[in-house]
Amino acid sequence: MPRPLYVTQPLLPDLEDVQSLLSEIWRTKILTNGGPFHERLENELRCHLGVPTAMLCNSGTIALLIALKLFDLPAGSEVITTPLTFAATAHAIHWNSLIPVFVDVEPETLTIDPASVEKAITKNTSAILAVHVYGTVCDLDALQSISDKHGVRLLYDAAHAFGTTVNGRPIGSFGDASVFSFHATKLFHTAEGGLVTTSRAIDREAIYFLRNFGIKNEEEVIAVGINGKLNEIQAAIGLLNLPRVQEERRRRAALREKYREFLKPIRGIRLQPEQRGVTSSEQYFPIVVDASVFGRSRDDLYFGLRKRGIYARKYFHPICTDFKPYQNYPIRSVRKTAYVNTVKSQVLCLPFYGGVDDEDIADIRDEFFVR
Amino acid sequence: MPRPLYVTQPLLPDLEDVQSLLSEIWRTKILTNGGPFHERLENELRCHLGVPTAMLCNSGTIALLIALKLFDLPAGSEVITTPLTFAATAHAIHWNSLIPVFVDVEPETLTIDPASVEKAITKNTSAILAVHVYGTVCDLDALQSISDKHGVRLLYDAAHAFGTTVNGRPIGSFGDASVFSFHATKLFHTAEGGLVTTSRAIDREAIYFLRNFGIKNEEEVIAVGINGKLNEIQAAIGLLNLPRVQEERRRRAALREKYREFLKPIRGIRLQPEQRGVTSSEQYFPIVVDASVFGRSRDDLYFGLRKRGIYARKYFHPICTDFKPYQNYPIRSVRKTAYVNTVKSQVLCLPFYGGVDDEDIADIRDEFFVR
Repeated sequence: MPRPLYVTQPLLPDLEDVQSLLSEIWRTKILTNGGPFHERLENELRCHLGVPTAMLCNSGTIALLIALKLFDLPAGSEVITTPLTFAATAHAIHWNSLIPVFVDVEPETLTIDPASVEKAITKNTSAILAVHVYGTVCDLDALQSISDKHGVRLLYDAAHAFGTTVNGRPIGSFGDASVFSFHATKLFHTAEGGLVTTSRAIDREAIYFLRNFGIKNEEEVIAVGINGKLNEIQAAIGLLNLPRVQEERRRRAALREKYREFLKPIRGIRLQPEQRGVTSSEQYFPIVVDASVFGRSRDDLYFGLRKRGIYARKYFHPICTDFKPYQNYPIRSVRKTAYVNTVKSQVLCLPFYGGVDDEDIADIRDEFFVR
Repeated sequence: MPRPLYVTQPLLPDLEDVQSLLSEIWRTKILTNGGPFHERLENELRCHLGVPTAMLCNSGTIALLIALKLFDLPAGSEVITTPLTFAATAHAIHWNSLIPVFVDVEPETLTIDPASVEKAITKNTSAILAVHVYGTVCDLDALQSISDKHGVRLLYDAAHAFGTTVNGRPIGSFGDASVFSFHATKLFHTAEGGLVTTSRAIDREAIYFLRNFGIKNEEEVIAVGINGKLNEIQAAIGLLNLPRVQEERRRRAALREKYREFLKPIRGIRLQPEQRGVTSSEQYFPIVVDASVFGRSRDDLYFGLRKRGIYARKYFHPICTDFKPYQNYPIRSVRKTAYVNTVKSQVLCLPFYGGVDDEDIADIRDEFFVR
């Protein structure tokens, strides 16, 4: 049995191609600090994503740190975000000496709820950090209105939304800045890595400095930057993976259809909404399990799959407000009880990559019909 | 002419060996998140450096962020450090919501001056972050006394001191924690990378969590961590570089002797002190140029070498208190004028790696006798 089956498997370029690019690195002896492959990949990503500014980083976390730093938000001011996200989102706020304020999610999309955001705005709010969670696009118009109305920055954690477009407009061009992750678990990856995008070419320079310790030139250090450079070896892997993304996305789209086909009729299993005009990133395939209707809990399903060697992921569980450092942080909501506290026990991400075959699908399918 | 000649050149393992380890990574499909090579390298470094705790990171900067975070220093408290260091040292303090307090250096060693440290201690001081600059060891006893007396943490930035021992004791075992850099410019490197060491095995767990977003297990996130993992590809390069360090160090030691031979008699050129009982890291070869005696300034020498295609480095110039974010920070000193403000215009690091040959040395030597 070709088990265990994990939630994802990384794209891997041909080793021969890797070797050929490594030879080039070994020849020039340029291993990092914005070398030629770093520059080439950055250019290709700018074109691929259709944004004027796309700055490579060594992780999505560092990309978040830099994106927040870019706007010189006052220390101690509040950044409104969602608790249904990876730890890095909240932590990046903290590392910037800012305070995360958690608000509820919309039940249908599981993205941050604009009404709850509006409710959480105070005179100390300096930014909103929204997340296109599972690649589902946030309510862009509503969030932009709130940002405009209150004069707060609007940033997007687009770690799950690589390549997504909304009515043809690239996801990385919305708000003041967006951040992508190129971790090995992501469709496009550089083993570890990240990206900051903005719709203004003028931001390139400031991000460039922040990524390299704030060093402007041999004589000047102008900001409290960090080491955000991606080394040449990882940039080379990115260059080889990028042309493979389309094919992998096509295979995942086919897998998505197969999943939808058998899951859609099952009462108590809710799928991601299909958003009009949105091209999918094909990053995750989450389902929401309503135990009272489906008859089995998310955790029960999770363990059932595990017994078959299938490692689905309770993603995101725990949510940020369950973390020890944020456990006393309330979740602001227009609801009496925050919906996110319900749904966190219901979400399950199924294995989702091109290598999942029909036998795997049949096995997963079977688990849904166990009674 | 085999120019330009830079201050350093990275060790590069045989590409065939790299390919063989990459095949292994491609087979397991484990690209990061503390895989087998990460673990192996960490074990080897622990033995190599002779410390109970040696935790790999993806950069020296992240290692600094984590080392400071480890001690839960109160936000807004002061960390005493030297301005004669790379930007990352001061920035890491800032990223931890702490305030850097800069003090003077000792004229002979260029390391932080304990008397000035003592003078800078206030009730808000929470730690000292000393730097073994150019691999010259700080006044360990004096700093430990101050740390003990005032109950403040003592951390070392040992980015330049990989492999140094003091009377047989490993440099990474002093103080509460030490941080190393494995950037490509360092003798031992992983292209980018870093390490946190401590003398207490018990610290491993906390650093492990901080390096992985504070995630303790599938159910608990216990701290505001960060992404500090080194990926498997870089760990593999580290595994191949580590056995080559001794040979490179031997070649650099020979180069050092050749430099010393022609530089020692030159009045107005001061060399690093030879510290009794200290084994050298062989990381840098700095000289201090006293223009009033030598007859030419550091900058003049720098440009003279450049004309020959030799890129020496004005390292560290500018110093941290020249950086825009720290330019209003005073330098505390027991002197009337801080010595570091004099020496910053006098230090020059000469090309220092095994590949510098006798012709290069002759060429560099010639520049010192130009009048």
